[in-house]
Amino acid sequence: MKDRTTISELPQKAGEDVLLCGWVRQRRSSGAKLRFLQIRDGTGLVQVVVKKGNVEDDALEAAGHVPLESSVVIRGTVREDERQVGGVEITATSFHVLHAAVGEYPLGKKDHGTGFLMDNRHLWLRSSRPHAAMRLRAEIISACRDHLDDLGFVGVDAPIFNSAAAEGTATLFPVEYFGDKVYLSQTGQLHMEAAAQALGKVYCFGPTFRAEKSKTRRHLTEFWMLEPEMAFADLDEDMDVMESMIGHVVQRVLENCKTELETLGRDISKLETCVPPFPRISYDDALEELKGTDAEIPWGEDFGAPQEDAVSAKYDRPILVHRFPTKIKAFYMQRDPARPEVVLGCDMIAPEGYGEIIGGGERCPDIDYLLEQIEHEGLPQEAYEWYLDLRRYGACPSAGFGMGLERVVAWLGDLKHVREAAPFARTMARTYP
Amino acid sequence: MKDRTTISELPQKAGEDVLLCGWVRQRRSSGAKLRFLQIRDGTGLVQVVVKKGNVEDDALEAAGHVPLESSVVIRGTVREDERQVGGVEITATSFHVLHAAVGEYPLGKKDHGTGFLMDNRHLWLRSSRPHAAMRLRAEIISACRDHLDDLGFVGVDAPIFNSAAAEGTATLFPVEYFGDKVYLSQTGQLHMEAAAQALGKVYCFGPTFRAEKSKTRRHLTEFWMLEPEMAFADLDEDMDVMESMIGHVVQRVLENCKTELETLGRDISKLETCVPPFPRISYDDALEELKGTDAEIPWGEDFGAPQEDAVSAKYDRPILVHRFPTKIKAFYMQRDPARPEVVLGCDMIAPEGYGEIIGGGERCPDIDYLLEQIEHEGLPQEAYEWYLDLRRYGACPSAGFGMGLERVVAWLGDLKHVREAAPFARTMARTYP
Repeated sequence: MKDRTTISELPQKAGEDVLLCGWVRQRRSSGAKLRFLQIRDGTGLVQVVVKKGNVEDDALEAAGHVPLESSVVIRGTVREDERQVGGVEITATSFHVLHAAVGEYPLGKKDHGTGFLMDNRHLWLRSSRPHAAMRLRAEIISACRDHLDDLGFVGVDAPIFNSAAAEGTATLFPVEYFGDKVYLSQTGQLHMEAAAQALGKVYCFGPTFRAEKSKTRRHLTEFWMLEPEMAFADLDEDMDVMESMIGHVVQRVLENCKTELETLGRDISKLETCVPPFPRISYDDALEELKGTDAEIPWGEDFGAPQEDAVSAKYDRPILVHRFPTKIKAFYMQRDPARPEVVLGCDMIAPEGYGEIIGGGERCPDIDYLLEQIEHEGLPQEAYEWYLDLRRYGACPSAGFGMGLERVVAWLGDLKHVREAAPFARTMARTYP
Repeated sequence: MKDRTTISELPQKAGEDVLLCGWVRQRRSSGAKLRFLQIRDGTGLVQVVVKKGNVEDDALEAAGHVPLESSVVIRGTVREDERQVGGVEITATSFHVLHAAVGEYPLGKKDHGTGFLMDNRHLWLRSSRPHAAMRLRAEIISACRDHLDDLGFVGVDAPIFNSAAAEGTATLFPVEYFGDKVYLSQTGQLHMEAAAQALGKVYCFGPTFRAEKSKTRRHLTEFWMLEPEMAFADLDEDMDVMESMIGHVVQRVLENCKTELETLGRDISKLETCVPPFPRISYDDALEELKGTDAEIPWGEDFGAPQEDAVSAKYDRPILVHRFPTKIKAFYMQRDPARPEVVLGCDMIAPEGYGEIIGGGERCPDIDYLLEQIEHEGLPQEAYEWYLDLRRYGACPSAGFGMGLERVVAWLGDLKHVREAAPFARTMARTYP
């Protein structure tokens, strides 16, 4: 039905006759002659008034009994009405049920449990919160890509099938590959280093996989990661790009997702302060601040959620924590020449307890150190020969980072669990629907 | 090195002193006092002149012996020179080798075999053809996304981990999933139908996986697919979107990828004719045209490369072939009410023998027919319960399509094998580098 009008277009069509296709979200009757339907079509909600005399009698009858979530086709006139969402309603001149829903809509009631809602994610997506979260996610993706494209980055997709681990062997997913065994990508970073040596500044943005057994609100087994990489960049420039990109994303979301943020109950004032520059704090200084608190840890230990939350609590915007201990970071990270016990890496921690959203830093250009590290971690050197080639031919300073998309969506949308930030979240116990 | 200038910026900096970071691509000496270096930095190529007296003596010495693909840092003055690529060259005032390449660059010679080049894809990407192909690919991705975003589509990522097949069980990749077995996504389409019922018009764009044993120049085991889906759309509207999107992509590529197309030796005149509308031909009419040719097939058989090539050969733009036989198409496709033996589906075939680049059509809203089909194909019904729910609650006309990214890149870039269209192609025999 090509001549259909979307609900989002209605405010510009006051007084016109339109064809509307959508689903019945709510329905009530007022006496025998009047039916009020709330229709959704994916772009918005609108009230449709079906009145005796305006439509055929059987249409009035149908409008009084149509099951929720049935698909319907309506013709009618757009009328301005300030009391309505979007400022308009439709006076129907015809009402036709295309497919009547079979029985009661499973999500018609309130207060369903999370397990039930996740089992019905394919239907739950139609509800206002998931709907808003998905639009927010799409805007964040576009904002990231646009910003990097404007900075001259080239999108280069990393492969998913890999012959070896990049982030430790504990969280690998093995795949049966024509009688062989390969692994799903945990990160595109190593391939992005190769691409950066070819194209200068690059990024990949796609799904990555970690067999995380931890059942926290911050972990999925399948999540999207944005991974920019820049040849000839150092940690400072890396932090500049993280900062400007997140600053841009927040701005775009504030501009284009007002309705969505409102639906999600997001306190917008807490996003409006997220303007660069973001505070930059060393791991050492962060540990100083944690002294005497419940989150205190000895030097050398990695941050967990308690440390991230405690360190970020006093700031009104994301912070950058840099120079973590070498021994807790990935094998390819560059050590600080002035202090080899720390790496030239950094994490961005979101405010309001949303935790780490970005990790990155400089890569080590020294092949001998990498060989040592590969042996030390028990990784198969032959699978990394190509990566080592990047140090044999064209070694250069290189820096980049990985942004966990779902964590950024959760933060900006004030979603309490990252499973709400993915269209169809995958966890240890869930690959359905 | 934040104050570095990229080679692409040099034409705007004539007369200025700049800092350049890059790699040595070619090197020659003219007597004892003059060295010419061709430098690449991912954004372009530039000639650097290192002359005795302008630089320290050891820098002159280094410039005469630096191995190819070493990373270097150069300061110098930008001078206009119409004979040079980009219209400029650099007169060096300093020349510093950051990391000298170890020995001879493996790809320094000409005429390497494809196997060798693919084994060294991490280095091969630096060569002019792969470099151009990757920039072309990035532009195509952006053009697709921009066009769909402009039409009001919402990006919704489909999950990779799935509990069942969507395109037949023969090409599934099984994954060990915490002691269980799940499958890598062959298509995001079923999930896009759920998303379209929530958001109206949606698309996913990500990797999909098929354990294709066929070793043709059109098949990869891992490839990116763009899958738009529209609630309340029919086959005609579906074809309109395919057509307008591909028209937009061709236009964008012609505007923004002139250099890349030239590098790839692409005959641009054959793209300039690819302007909508595209011819729309029924399967029946196509078979008529094939009669008496080598590509003749009996009614009911699917197209292979010979049929695609023969039918498309006489057109100067992509064509749309619609209404294929029901029995050779996926279980969820909608039959033509007037002729149930054909489906309301369509393939877009690229010109110049590049074959099918898009497949799509209307989905069947009828749950009884789908149940029959699931049983007939031997698929596990419980894994499809959520998909069947889309017919129980909110069934509606829905149409969409899948565009194979690598095939479009191959076509527009005139690449003879899709492995050249992916940054790190995966085939039956290759998951490295």
